[in-house]
Amino acid sequence: MTTTRRTHQAVRLDWPRLRARLDALGRVGALDGGGVCRLALTPEDKAGRDLVVGWMRDLGLHVTIDAIGNIIGLRPGLEDGAPVMAGSHIDTVRTGGLYDGNLGVLAGLEVVAALNDAGVTTRRPLAVGVFTNEEGARFAPDMMGSLVYVGGLPLAEALAVEGIDGRTVGDALSAIGYAGPAPVGTPAVHAFVELHIEQGPVLEEQGIAIGAVEGVQGISWTDVIVEGTSNHAGTTPMRLRRDAGYVATAAAVVVRDLAARMGGDQVATVGALELTPNLINVVPGRARFTLDLRNTDEARLQAAEQVAFAEIDRLAAAEGCTVTRRTLARFEPVTFDLAMVDRVEAAARARGLSVRRMPSGAGHDAQMMARVCPTGMIFVPSAGGISHNVTEHTDDAHLEAGASVLLDLLVDLAEPVDPAPG
Amino acid sequence: MTTTRRTHQAVRLDWPRLRARLDALGRVGALDGGGVCRLALTPEDKAGRDLVVGWMRDLGLHVTIDAIGNIIGLRPGLEDGAPVMAGSHIDTVRTGGLYDGNLGVLAGLEVVAALNDAGVTTRRPLAVGVFTNEEGARFAPDMMGSLVYVGGLPLAEALAVEGIDGRTVGDALSAIGYAGPAPVGTPAVHAFVELHIEQGPVLEEQGIAIGAVEGVQGISWTDVIVEGTSNHAGTTPMRLRRDAGYVATAAAVVVRDLAARMGGDQVATVGALELTPNLINVVPGRARFTLDLRNTDEARLQAAEQVAFAEIDRLAAAEGCTVTRRTLARFEPVTFDLAMVDRVEAAARARGLSVRRMPSGAGHDAQMMARVCPTGMIFVPSAGGISHNVTEHTDDAHLEAGASVLLDLLVDLAEPVDPAPG
Repeated sequence: MTTTRRTHQAVRLDWPRLRARLDALGRVGALDGGGVCRLALTPEDKAGRDLVVGWMRDLGLHVTIDAIGNIIGLRPGLEDGAPVMAGSHIDTVRTGGLYDGNLGVLAGLEVVAALNDAGVTTRRPLAVGVFTNEEGARFAPDMMGSLVYVGGLPLAEALAVEGIDGRTVGDALSAIGYAGPAPVGTPAVHAFVELHIEQGPVLEEQGIAIGAVEGVQGISWTDVIVEGTSNHAGTTPMRLRRDAGYVATAAAVVVRDLAARMGGDQVATVGALELTPNLINVVPGRARFTLDLRNTDEARLQAAEQVAFAEIDRLAAAEGCTVTRRTLARFEPVTFDLAMVDRVEAAARARGLSVRRMPSGAGHDAQMMARVCPTGMIFVPSAGGISHNVTEHTDDAHLEAGASVLLDLLVDLAEPVDPAPG
Repeated sequence: MTTTRRTHQAVRLDWPRLRARLDALGRVGALDGGGVCRLALTPEDKAGRDLVVGWMRDLGLHVTIDAIGNIIGLRPGLEDGAPVMAGSHIDTVRTGGLYDGNLGVLAGLEVVAALNDAGVTTRRPLAVGVFTNEEGARFAPDMMGSLVYVGGLPLAEALAVEGIDGRTVGDALSAIGYAGPAPVGTPAVHAFVELHIEQGPVLEEQGIAIGAVEGVQGISWTDVIVEGTSNHAGTTPMRLRRDAGYVATAAAVVVRDLAARMGGDQVATVGALELTPNLINVVPGRARFTLDLRNTDEARLQAAEQVAFAEIDRLAAAEGCTVTRRTLARFEPVTFDLAMVDRVEAAARARGLSVRRMPSGAGHDAQMMARVCPTGMIFVPSAGGISHNVTEHTDDAHLEAGASVLLDLLVDLAEPVDPAPG
């Protein structure tokens, strides 16, 4: 143990090198005026992939591309077997930033570089994974590459998915030369760690450097259509109205109150709402709104759904309106391996960094990997909680701190072998 | 009095003739699939005006066009002086029907025709008025022609108004040849009566044939913009949100509850509501909504405004959002001359028709004329309360009943002179 601690200290992050890689990748698909657009499997994504694969090869990694386009760079260990893997994605939304996804991949490469610099071998192999189409901005579902990797979606089904431009995943993969020969799901992974920006405001607001992610919230997306009767706003007495807009707005208030009453990490959002005909002097005959409910606890998420749906039905019935509900997405919550959460927390504390346990409100490749191996996530603060936005930002000090925690964790999990005494 | 009663009975409505005129005018600007589009001062409006002016001349009326395009057809009385006037408008909204406005004008012509048929002369002159741009669908404000007629808007200001197509009222009037030589506001009017469809559901719902309109509700239109912060719906805890959508929807519920609590004829409508960016997984950073408040009592309308605005401000402050309010329209309530309301009610009862007193929720030329002379309005039921819609409908029996009440009222006000004994 003492030996290992000494070895750790010899493996040192080169922050300017990581910063330079973040900037270089950020120039691929850069938007005028800031931000990045590298939608999955576009020429920009290919250019980003080529850059990363080149860096992997420069670092001596053995690179494989699987049939869904996931890129795995492997650093051999003293023993064969399942590697410890760091990973994330490099595709972005249409108005993406420099860190969402990219940070987890490039910090993983920096760990490899640091091990190389220190001449340290690990008992277990170390891998860096780049998963295809995490964002889902061109092809649904999101987290596609990792989902296929863990067997959650058949490969053939994923390849047949049509994107927003009508092209299939399979065609787009072939077009950019990333329909690889490696079987999907190999290698098996010993443990998976993803460093990611929080994409929320909690760490910044609380002045905390590191988030030890306990799991990913379950998500329930519902589209609700309310049908009433359109009428003259001046001549229709209140008691004779069947106001679809009233039902929709009252429902939005009810779900907000529900989330507040439930407390904990329950969130509820009515993000989209449209009235028809949407005129100042006409009682809305139709309203459409979306409901986004999330909770880390499946039972509580189901309870939230039940109460919300019942209240919407009750409001509509009282107004003489009808309701049509359609589920747009439904994922159960994911709980990360407790030992991995402990490790993240301990690694941060060992560096003297402030840390808190927290759920992830957004989806990540790590939640898919958690199905097949112990998985952890490290969050670093997002300025203003802003993400999927060209103004996405995290301070250098926070990026470096997160990468350091990733390094310590990976090295620890991979079990460094002391260099032969000189 | 006995003599007058006998004279009344000799003046008989020719319903098929009125029906034929309604249909003929309805064919001018007819829309495929039903309904009519005769926006003010368009070629369609000109064609409608030409048709009506032709009918006026055929009936022996002396036709004058004033500088704002109002058409007055005068039937001389035994004495000179201020005429009794029936009137309304023939412009329509983009998706108008056959009766809104047109009924009041054409029923007025039918009264003239019936007097002609019976060879009855009246002591006072009788006039039929067609007012320019009542709907306001092309040029604001609505009720423009009658507003200028009564001196509520300077002629020059009205002529300079730019329409939705950038053209001014003055240019459009000249283009269709209806910038007339008559001074606006002449002749002075002894009494004004407007027959109109209710455009609301009350008469139909209560099975009543005739509405004796007591006045027109005051109206308060406000545009409200709420600014908060756009954030990720998954990663932003409820307590850290500045949700502009929540403020807007909660405001909509508050004003609805306010109207219910105030009771009486108070109505409150949030007819338009837009969220930005309006995405399922983004907390709205901006919301815009409209507030339509109406009451027949100015003090109560002001109270409704005060409570609504204060509640919106309170909701926004609690959420950390800012509010910008802009008044789009504000008209005080109009109360019709009580003797005129009594006359409408008595005329309906004398015909054996069911009748109720009621306010008008919509604006009408009559509310402008009420500034300068005793004014009354006769409402007939609107099927389903539907108006400003190509499906606008009133049963023939109701149209005929309304026209009969108008006839009795006008003849009574104009004081028929018995024909010389034959």
